[in-house]
Amino acid sequence: MKFIRVDLTHQTVTHDAVPAAYAGLGGRGLTAEIINAEVPPQCDPLGPDNKLAIAPGLLSGTTLVNTSRISIGAKSPLTGTIKESNSGGKIAACLGKLGVTAIVVEGQAPKGSLYVMSVDVNGNAKLHDAAQYKGMRTYDLCAKLLADFGPKNTIMCIGPAGEYQLGSASIQTTDVDDRPCRAAGRGGLGAVMGAKGLKAVVVSTEGKNPDALADPEAFKEAAKIFAQELRNNPFTAKVLPKYGTASTLDAVNALGAFPSYNATKGTFDGASKINGAALVKTIESRGGKVQHMGCAQCIVQCSNEYVDPQGKYVTSSLEYETIWSMGGMLGIDDLDTIARLDYLCDDIGLDTINTGVAMAVAMDAGYKSFGDCLAAIDMVEAIAQGTEMGRLIGSGPDAVGKHFNHHRVPTVKGQSIAAYDPRGMQGNGVTYATSPMGADHTAGNMLGHYMARALDPLSPDGQVDGSRQVQIGMAAMDCVGMCILAGMGMTTKEARNAMFQMIGAKLGTPVDSKGYAAMGMRTLKVEREFNQKAGFTAKDDRLPRFFYEEPLPPHNKVFLVKDEDLDKVHNF
Amino acid sequence: MKFIRVDLTHQTVTHDAVPAAYAGLGGRGLTAEIINAEVPPQCDPLGPDNKLAIAPGLLSGTTLVNTSRISIGAKSPLTGTIKESNSGGKIAACLGKLGVTAIVVEGQAPKGSLYVMSVDVNGNAKLHDAAQYKGMRTYDLCAKLLADFGPKNTIMCIGPAGEYQLGSASIQTTDVDDRPCRAAGRGGLGAVMGAKGLKAVVVSTEGKNPDALADPEAFKEAAKIFAQELRNNPFTAKVLPKYGTASTLDAVNALGAFPSYNATKGTFDGASKINGAALVKTIESRGGKVQHMGCAQCIVQCSNEYVDPQGKYVTSSLEYETIWSMGGMLGIDDLDTIARLDYLCDDIGLDTINTGVAMAVAMDAGYKSFGDCLAAIDMVEAIAQGTEMGRLIGSGPDAVGKHFNHHRVPTVKGQSIAAYDPRGMQGNGVTYATSPMGADHTAGNMLGHYMARALDPLSPDGQVDGSRQVQIGMAAMDCVGMCILAGMGMTTKEARNAMFQMIGAKLGTPVDSKGYAAMGMRTLKVEREFNQKAGFTAKDDRLPRFFYEEPLPPHNKVFLVKDEDLDKVHNF
Repeated sequence: MKFIRVDLTHQTVTHDAVPAAYAGLGGRGLTAEIINAEVPPQCDPLGPDNKLAIAPGLLSGTTLVNTSRISIGAKSPLTGTIKESNSGGKIAACLGKLGVTAIVVEGQAPKGSLYVMSVDVNGNAKLHDAAQYKGMRTYDLCAKLLADFGPKNTIMCIGPAGEYQLGSASIQTTDVDDRPCRAAGRGGLGAVMGAKGLKAVVVSTEGKNPDALADPEAFKEAAKIFAQELRNNPFTAKVLPKYGTASTLDAVNALGAFPSYNATKGTFDGASKINGAALVKTIESRGGKVQHMGCAQCIVQCSNEYVDPQGKYVTSSLEYETIWSMGGMLGIDDLDTIARLDYLCDDIGLDTINTGVAMAVAMDAGYKSFGDCLAAIDMVEAIAQGTEMGRLIGSGPDAVGKHFNHHRVPTVKGQSIAAYDPRGMQGNGVTYATSPMGADHTAGNMLGHYMARALDPLSPDGQVDGSRQVQIGMAAMDCVGMCILAGMGMTTKEARNAMFQMIGAKLGTPVDSKGYAAMGMRTLKVEREFNQKAGFTAKDDRLPRFFYEEPLPPHNKVFLVKDEDLDKVHNF
Repeated sequence: MKFIRVDLTHQTVTHDAVPAAYAGLGGRGLTAEIINAEVPPQCDPLGPDNKLAIAPGLLSGTTLVNTSRISIGAKSPLTGTIKESNSGGKIAACLGKLGVTAIVVEGQAPKGSLYVMSVDVNGNAKLHDAAQYKGMRTYDLCAKLLADFGPKNTIMCIGPAGEYQLGSASIQTTDVDDRPCRAAGRGGLGAVMGAKGLKAVVVSTEGKNPDALADPEAFKEAAKIFAQELRNNPFTAKVLPKYGTASTLDAVNALGAFPSYNATKGTFDGASKINGAALVKTIESRGGKVQHMGCAQCIVQCSNEYVDPQGKYVTSSLEYETIWSMGGMLGIDDLDTIARLDYLCDDIGLDTINTGVAMAVAMDAGYKSFGDCLAAIDMVEAIAQGTEMGRLIGSGPDAVGKHFNHHRVPTVKGQSIAAYDPRGMQGNGVTYATSPMGADHTAGNMLGHYMARALDPLSPDGQVDGSRQVQIGMAAMDCVGMCILAGMGMTTKEARNAMFQMIGAKLGTPVDSKGYAAMGMRTLKVEREFNQKAGFTAKDDRLPRFFYEEPLPPHNKVFLVKDEDLDKVHNF
C-alpha cells in the first residue's frame, strides 16, 4: 500500500499510505482518479502542473496470470484530453510485488537537467542525476541502466522522442528478456515524462511484499480456474501463441476494413505478404520465435521474436497494429522493413501507430510515395536525429496534415485511428469518436462482435450499444491490469465468475458482473469529467470529415452513425 | 606547365616548372613515373614517405571531348603495389585549363590536423586549416566548401572512410552539377589522402591558361573528327546515353560470367530486375534522368540521375559495376537499395566495388544473408560510424575473409575483381592476375573481344595476347585522359588516327599507332618496375585458388590459363 510521489521541481520523493480517496483502485481506474483530482484540466500538458500517474493494475503483483499491465495516466499533449496508456513487460508485476500502488510524478526538473528514479527492493524510491543517459536510445539505455543499477531490475523509460517532447513519444518498458520492446504508446505520454525531466524508472524485480489479499484461498481457487479457462480457449491457447495478434490481419482485410494507403482502400494488395501466415513462415524459416513470453506471468505468449534472414534479433514483439501502420497504411508489403520500423520506434521511443499514420499522411500528401521502404526508415530515423521533418513526423498525423495542408488525416482528438476503418467497422468508429482518450482501439474494439456475426459491421444499427458495452468492459479490464489479449479468453461464464471472485477476494467485498461493469463505468465517467472541465464538448466526439464523405472500397460505404447517436454512448 | 608540390609535414607549397624527367607525360603515365621515381617502394603506404600524385590527362584542358579524367597515383595501401585510379567530373579539365600538369602531395600533417588545398584562378596553390570539415561526408562537405570558397570551384575530396584510412576509401570528385558522385575508387587512395591529412583539393573552374599546343590547327581538325566519330558510333551515340554502363549487364549475364552471390554463380536470377532496361524504366517512370552529363566536355552522357519513387535525387551515376557489386554479388535485386548503397559509398567516400565485394564475402561467410537489403545498408552505414565491423568491411574483402576465416575471396593483390568472372571470361582473369595494380577491370577489359566473337571467353586460347593488347591500350588511354567509355567509340581507323594526330599536335612530334602503344607500354613497365622493387614476383600474378578449383555455373568451368602463360603477359 505504498503511494510514492516524486517532485522533479525540487527533486524530492515522499512515501505515503494510499490516500483514502484512491483506496481500492488500480490501473486505469486509479490513474484516472489521480489525474482528474490533481491536474488542472486547462494546464499545459508539458508544463509543471501536469502529472504522470503510474499504477499497476488492481491484480498486478498477485499470482494471477497475465496481470502485468502498467497503467500510465496524464493529460495528453497529443489529444488535450485525459489519457491512460498501458504497457506490458515486468514492471507492473514488480511494483505489485513491492506493494507499490502508484507513483505520481509531479513538477518539472530545471531546464537541461534529467533524472532517473529507482525503486529498490524495499519499495524506497530515489532520484539520480541522469546526465550520462541524455539522448540515449532505449535499447542502449536499458542495457546501461541494468549494468549500472544491477540486473535484477526492470525499466520504464523514454527515448529521444520523449526527450524532444514529441506528440508521438511513447514510454517503453522492458520485457522478460530486458528488452525495451513493450510500449505505452498512445497519447504522447513519453513527452510528458520528458517534459518532467524523467528519463527512466528502474524498479527492483526482487520484491516479495505484495499487498495482502482479503481472502487468499478464494483468490487462489479462482486464479487457477481462470488460467485453466485461458488454456481451454482456442484463441488464447492456439491462435495467439502461434500467429500472435497478426492473426487479426486476414479477418479485418476480409471485412474490407483494413485501412490501406492512408485509409483510401479497405483491403491491401500485399496482405498475404505481411499477414499472420507470412509472419510465421518468415520467422520459422529463419529460426526466430513465433511464440515468445514477453510479459511477466504470461501464459498466452502472443509475442514473437522477429529475426533477420541471418536469424539475428530484429524486434519483439511484432504486432498487428504495427504491421498495419507501418505496412498496409504505407503501402509497404515487406516484413523486414516493417520489423525494422517497429524496432526503430521502440528504440527511439515512439508510438508505432501514430508514427506510421503520420508517415501515411505525408505520403498521401505527396511528400513520399506509398511503398517506399527506404523513405519510411529515413523518416523514422529523422525523428531520432531531431531534424525539422523528423520533429514534424514525430508530432503526429495532425501536425503533418497541417504542414502539407492535407485533409485526409485519420485522427480523433489528434490521435490516429488504429487498424480498423470506421467505414468498414462502424462500431470501431463509434469508439474512436467517443472514447475519452481520442481514437484508440484498445478503448473498445468491436471486432469480436463482427467475427461472431452478432452485428453487421457496415450498418449503423447497434453500434452505439456495442461500443458502449466494450468501452465499459475494456475500462474495467484496464483497472484490473489484465492484458486485453488474455482477456479475449474470458468468454465463458466460468472465466468471468473467476475474475469477479478474484477482485472480490482482493478487495474483501463481493463483486459480481454489475460491480465489475461499475468499475469500468466509474473510470469512463471520471475521464469524461476531466475532459469536460478541459473544454471538450459533444462536437469533439466526431470523426474527421473524410470518413463521412469518402466511401471506402471495396464496400464503398461511409461512416453512417448519426451524431445524435454518438452522443448516447456515454448514457449510462 | 605548372608542377605543384605540397608538403603536409611543413605545410608548404611550391610551384615549379615541370621537371625534365616528366616532360611530355600526362595522366597515369605521369603518376606512374612520379611514384616510381620518388616513392621508396618498401615504404608504408600510409606513412610520410608515400606520395599522392594528381595529374590530369595529357589532353585534359584541351578542347577535345571526354578528356576530363584525373589520374591519382600512389603506392596503394590496399594492394601494396603502385596504383593509379582515375575519376571524371570537372577537375581534370579545370587543372588543364589552369596549366597545371601535376600536384604532388608529400609528407604527413601532424597527427590530428587536417588541411584543404586550394588552387586559384592563377594556378596558385595554398593550404587552409580544415578542422571545421573534419569527419564530414562528401555531399555536405562539397556544399560547404563551395559556400566557403565560392561556387566557381570544383573539388576532389575524401569522406569519413578516407579519414579512417580504410583500404576501400575512395577519392571523390564533383561532377558538372557539383555533386561528389565521381570516384577514383580503387586502390584505397582515399586512405593515402587521409593519411597525409588532406581532406580536399578545391580547384578554380575559371582557368584560361592551358598549355600551348604545338600545332593548334592540326589539333582542332582531329578533335572535330574524333567527336564526329563518337557521334557516329552506335555504342557511344545510342546505347550509352540511354542505358549507361548498365547496358553491359545482360551481355555478361548471358555469357554466364556475371559473378553472383559472391561469385558462386555466373548468372543472377534477379538480373531482369536490375539490368539496363529495368534501370531505364524505373528512372523514366519517376521522372529522373536516364541521360545525364556528369563530366566536363562529355558528349556521350552515359551518366544518369537515379531518383526515388517521389522523383527526388538519390544518386548519380548508377553504373554497371555498382549494380553488380551491390546487386548480384549480394543477391540483391532491388534497384532502390542498390542506388542507396551507391549514394552512401559516394557520401562516405568508398569504392563501391571493393565495398560490395567485402560485404559479399561477409555474407558468404555467414555473417549476413544474401539478399538482405537492410543489412547491406547497415554495413555501409557502419563504416561511416567507425564501428569495429564497419572498419572491417571498409578494409576490403581480404580483411573480411581473414576475420571470418573464409576462403572464397575474389581478389588479386587484395583488390576485388569487378563484374566479370574469370571463369566465364578467361581474359579478364588474365588481366586481374597480371595488371600491376591488382584486380582491376579498367586495366584491360576483354568484353569487347567476346561480344565481337573474336575469342571464346571460356577457352584459355588467345587470352594472354588479348589481355596484353587491351592492358596496353587502356594504359595509353589513361595517359591521354580520355574516358574509357568514350574510348569504346574509337573503333574506326579515322577515330584512331585522329587520336594519334592530337597527341602529336600537343607534343610537337608525330605519333602513330606504335607511338601510342609505346606510351601504354612504358607506363606498364614503370609500374612493374616499382612493384618488383616493392617485392612482388610472378607468384603474385595469380588468381585466388577457388577460381582454379570451383567450377562456375552455368558453364561449370574453372580458370584455365596456365601460370607460365600468365607470366608472358608482360613480354613486350
